[in-house]
Amino acid sequence: MAPPKVPETARRGYIVPVGGAEKKDEEAFILRRFVEMCGGPEGRIAVIPTASELEDTGTRYEGLFLELGAGQAQSLDYRRRTDTDDPERLKWLRNATGIFLTGGNQLRITTILGGTRVARAIRSANARGVSVGGTSAGAAVLSEHMVAFGESGATPVAGRVTLAPGLGLTNRVVIDQHFRQRDRIGRLLAALALNPFAVGVGLDEDTAAFIDADDVLRVRGSGAVTVIDANGLEHSSMGSAEGGQVICMTGLRLHILPRGGTFDLRNRIAKPPPGTLD
Amino acid sequence: MAPPKVPETARRGYIVPVGGAEKKDEEAFILRRFVEMCGGPEGRIAVIPTASELEDTGTRYEGLFLELGAGQAQSLDYRRRTDTDDPERLKWLRNATGIFLTGGNQLRITTILGGTRVARAIRSANARGVSVGGTSAGAAVLSEHMVAFGESGATPVAGRVTLAPGLGLTNRVVIDQHFRQRDRIGRLLAALALNPFAVGVGLDEDTAAFIDADDVLRVRGSGAVTVIDANGLEHSSMGSAEGGQVICMTGLRLHILPRGGTFDLRNRIAKPPPGTLD
Repeated sequence: MAPPKVPETARRGYIVPVGGAEKKDEEAFILRRFVEMCGGPEGRIAVIPTASELEDTGTRYEGLFLELGAGQAQSLDYRRRTDTDDPERLKWLRNATGIFLTGGNQLRITTILGGTRVARAIRSANARGVSVGGTSAGAAVLSEHMVAFGESGATPVAGRVTLAPGLGLTNRVVIDQHFRQRDRIGRLLAALALNPFAVGVGLDEDTAAFIDADDVLRVRGSGAVTVIDANGLEHSSMGSAEGGQVICMTGLRLHILPRGGTFDLRNRIAKPPPGTLD
Repeated sequence: MAPPKVPETARRGYIVPVGGAEKKDEEAFILRRFVEMCGGPEGRIAVIPTASELEDTGTRYEGLFLELGAGQAQSLDYRRRTDTDDPERLKWLRNATGIFLTGGNQLRITTILGGTRVARAIRSANARGVSVGGTSAGAAVLSEHMVAFGESGATPVAGRVTLAPGLGLTNRVVIDQHFRQRDRIGRLLAALALNPFAVGVGLDEDTAAFIDADDVLRVRGSGAVTVIDANGLEHSSMGSAEGGQVICMTGLRLHILPRGGTFDLRNRIAKPPPGTLD
């Protein structure tokens, strides 16, 4: 899906991909910030645990968001496509002031929610100003082009990454998570090699990119965000590479941004953290 | 890229994916119709042979379009990313009344043109009303989500299809070509399984889908267009399928449309050919 149209009087809500394994104790800076921006004590956060096959993922985040100060939190447990017609859950979703997608398998989200009213409700909520976050699988699915799966390793290899259409809240980035922990720069590069127009965003665990309505990305959390900008790509062998061959790419720009660092996705400008962090 | 914004005073040009091996003799009904809609003797058709590694693909289509009655035709031979800065070719492209992408390898198009001024010029031309067609690889690349490669066969198998970002003129379809000739329904189904929001369009050889500004698709040529609508998908195993497993999908709708048949991509309504064809 193309990014949803933002009504003229509204500003798009934040898009908040989290790299997985975000802290959930007193150092839960990422989730706490998310709760704040969703209205804190006035906030109503919808949790979508569809990516997970575990029974308690949704209720766990429900409790967590309440502990962190959200006024209300509700797990909307969509487990099959027919669930998406349920009017009560749709009503909750449409009245939410924040939406959070848990981890698991991103293909569960797209296959269960893709093309349904739930996907449309998430998109239109974000366009109206509601912040939408997700961790791990829930992060990958936020963008138009999503890394569905792929192999680990530092070098990009042809045919070793699979893209799928995501929820499409933004088309400026391709997101990968557990980035340093699972050695994924190769697969993110391979994804960009397929079409270098997007910006690659690799999120370490317990690290998030808060992307505002002007498409400026700000890093929060304990790790780093790796930004790969293929805009200046001079040469790529992807057009002639056979499966299993290393992809040759020249002219890429790379930024490693710790918390407080920013990247302007429209103008492709990276800035280090200012003097004071967080 | 998301579909380009259509200026308020303009109507988007046609999007014309062709299934490959279109006739080039006196029965060249598809290419002849394309020439007509690009202005015929007043038309200026830009040919982009980037998908092809053959030397003469561009000049061959140049000659063909002139024979079929185009006022002007020019091959714009982009072979590397640095070519895309050439002001003369850009000028020709921006003044074209029709743009045609030849066959070859669709990943050559995306890796050489993705994110460049040439890709932007094609998108903005289409938004302004210029018709953009392509055959085989040139057809695949027209949509937002493009089948880059995959395996033949009738049943969808997890992990056997690779999507990549295309030129993004429309996000309503995923296109596959040489459809009957190369037995590709399985890979198109596998692509839709990744996210069922789009409509699958399988084009036989010498067969084209002319998609108008209202997103109504009309079939031309000697074969058929297979339309797969996953909107009513009830169940899909894609979220839990392992690589190599057949994907279970229930509730798909399928339409086989010969020339004259239409499919309304917004309302998902198929109509058989009216009494009179072509």
